[in-house]
Amino acid sequence: MIDMQTFLQEESVRVDAKIEQLLHEAGSLPMYHMLRYFMGYGNDLRHPTQGTHGKRTRSSLLLLTAKLFGGSSVAVDFAAAVELFHNFTLIHDDIVDNDEMRRGQPTLWKLWGKDHGINSGDAQLLLTNQVLLEAARKDAVYGVATAQLLTQYFLEICEGQYLDFELTKYALHDPLVTPEAYLEMIRKKTAVLVGAAASAGGMSAGCDDEVVQKLFTYGESLGLAYQIVDDHVSIWEETGATGKRAYGDIIERKKTYPALFARDHGDATRLTALYEKKETLTEDEVREVVNIFEKSGAREATEAYAHTYIENARSIARSLPLDDTSKGILVALVEKVARVAGTIETPPM
Amino acid sequence: MIDMQTFLQEESVRVDAKIEQLLHEAGSLPMYHMLRYFMGYGNDLRHPTQGTHGKRTRSSLLLLTAKLFGGSSVAVDFAAAVELFHNFTLIHDDIVDNDEMRRGQPTLWKLWGKDHGINSGDAQLLLTNQVLLEAARKDAVYGVATAQLLTQYFLEICEGQYLDFELTKYALHDPLVTPEAYLEMIRKKTAVLVGAAASAGGMSAGCDDEVVQKLFTYGESLGLAYQIVDDHVSIWEETGATGKRAYGDIIERKKTYPALFARDHGDATRLTALYEKKETLTEDEVREVVNIFEKSGAREATEAYAHTYIENARSIARSLPLDDTSKGILVALVEKVARVAGTIETPPM
Repeated sequence: MIDMQTFLQEESVRVDAKIEQLLHEAGSLPMYHMLRYFMGYGNDLRHPTQGTHGKRTRSSLLLLTAKLFGGSSVAVDFAAAVELFHNFTLIHDDIVDNDEMRRGQPTLWKLWGKDHGINSGDAQLLLTNQVLLEAARKDAVYGVATAQLLTQYFLEICEGQYLDFELTKYALHDPLVTPEAYLEMIRKKTAVLVGAAASAGGMSAGCDDEVVQKLFTYGESLGLAYQIVDDHVSIWEETGATGKRAYGDIIERKKTYPALFARDHGDATRLTALYEKKETLTEDEVREVVNIFEKSGAREATEAYAHTYIENARSIARSLPLDDTSKGILVALVEKVARVAGTIETPPM
Repeated sequence: MIDMQTFLQEESVRVDAKIEQLLHEAGSLPMYHMLRYFMGYGNDLRHPTQGTHGKRTRSSLLLLTAKLFGGSSVAVDFAAAVELFHNFTLIHDDIVDNDEMRRGQPTLWKLWGKDHGINSGDAQLLLTNQVLLEAARKDAVYGVATAQLLTQYFLEICEGQYLDFELTKYALHDPLVTPEAYLEMIRKKTAVLVGAAASAGGMSAGCDDEVVQKLFTYGESLGLAYQIVDDHVSIWEETGATGKRAYGDIIERKKTYPALFARDHGDATRLTALYEKKETLTEDEVREVVNIFEKSGAREATEAYAHTYIENARSIARSLPLDDTSKGILVALVEKVARVAGTIETPPM
């Protein structure tokens, strides 16, 4: 049996080497320095701030599924494409969200301005496409098909961003703001890319359509569970396992699943009033929101909701045409997500 | 002999049909309505403003060179990709330039906000990639190679936008603001896409590297001539042949070729003072700038500069491995650019 941890570490190094090479070959224009900075490949000449790597979870998942299904010579290219695309979305998201910091460092637009942020992000999306076409050239059968699959999913992620803008725009009491609308938004904005990574790995290794579809649903469920757990953590974990501010989602009055559940099953009038308040919430008010959530049963409902997807990912992993060891690796990934929130009790496997 | 005008009109209809189909298949999310609006395909449900078509010059050039070199089954796809990409750059350019109107209609961001402008633009670039991959799938030899060629040039256009930001940032007297820097900026930002269109048409029809390169230089020269003529028109044509405001580039204190020439060969002190003035220029001051330009010989120098590229495009057209009629069609395109500015005397063919 291969040591999966070692394999993934080595392959991840190859993915980053591929992206660094791509940025190097693109040229010496400072625009590419900005992208190097954002990807965490060292200092920029004029702004000596060291960027930091993201977790590279999506590209690792792609490399993993490719490996489990027999390997692919273009998996590294697709992993690079997924990582480039993911970071491209972050560059533009930081602009529209006005976020000044990411991974403890100033965001790209914060250092160089929004105009450069938009344009450098565009360049990064073109680099993504460059890698996809390179893979398509290397492998005329699975390469082209996988590149098309990924591009289709990338478009869905833009749709997710669109849905996020819309949800943000409406008030908590608006009839358009439903748990279903929220789910569809996080599905497209977050979960689809995890599904895309899992399925692209399999497709590049030559899996048939049924397996590719299963891999997509596995990743998508994993991504949904991860996001719902993240929403839970933001409210019920005071010390951030995620490194995020306690009660961040309440302070920002985000319409995540717990808020929507509490609105539909608790004191909607008071909650809506607090969510529409123009001023910053006081500490007492934040505690009041948490109490409304608790009384409505939102905590348990959110946990149950996450567990639905955790269970779904787990059962798909077990149904894949793989040996038990390989299935175990995919199931272990699910358990990792399930464990992120200590407050969420994981049912027995 | 085929009727080239009829051919191009029919093919252009196919290109727009292709783009409309793509937007239709993408789905009914209002994000795609925004793109339909910007591409000029009719009303948006919530904003009943009719968009207007652009001139589709780049895609027509691509279809033309493909046809002249024997035709290609994927030329329509590449023409659609070039048109989608060009309009994608406009969607994002309008945001960074804060332009509220284009083709006599409100810009995309003006109607739906900058966040949607960024995100819908991103979606349009992904649709561009989708068409490129479709062509790559249809034609494993020329399709993939042409898609790669175009993507490489698309990246150069982002570099051009970067250079434009930099040039705009520096004052007229800054040593970094040179005619060479200006030329490199308009080359990448404007001319490269014209070259890309001309060469992609040839490559998709199976031309060898030498011809593909010649076609690129032909288009690039055409694009450069067009841009320099446009700069000339902005200053020396009071009634806009281009529909633009008289003296627009002077009012906005743009550092185009005439300004740089006048700075280097005329009253640099006074010109620099006027270009650094914070307030809007008075009518007298605008006239003063024109006079400084005239005295320095900037008008003749700009005309000579444009003619260099016009002559270059013309001589490349004549050197292509085509019959005289076909060469004549490409030369005629050059003459069209040369004639845009009535003030620019065209030397005999």
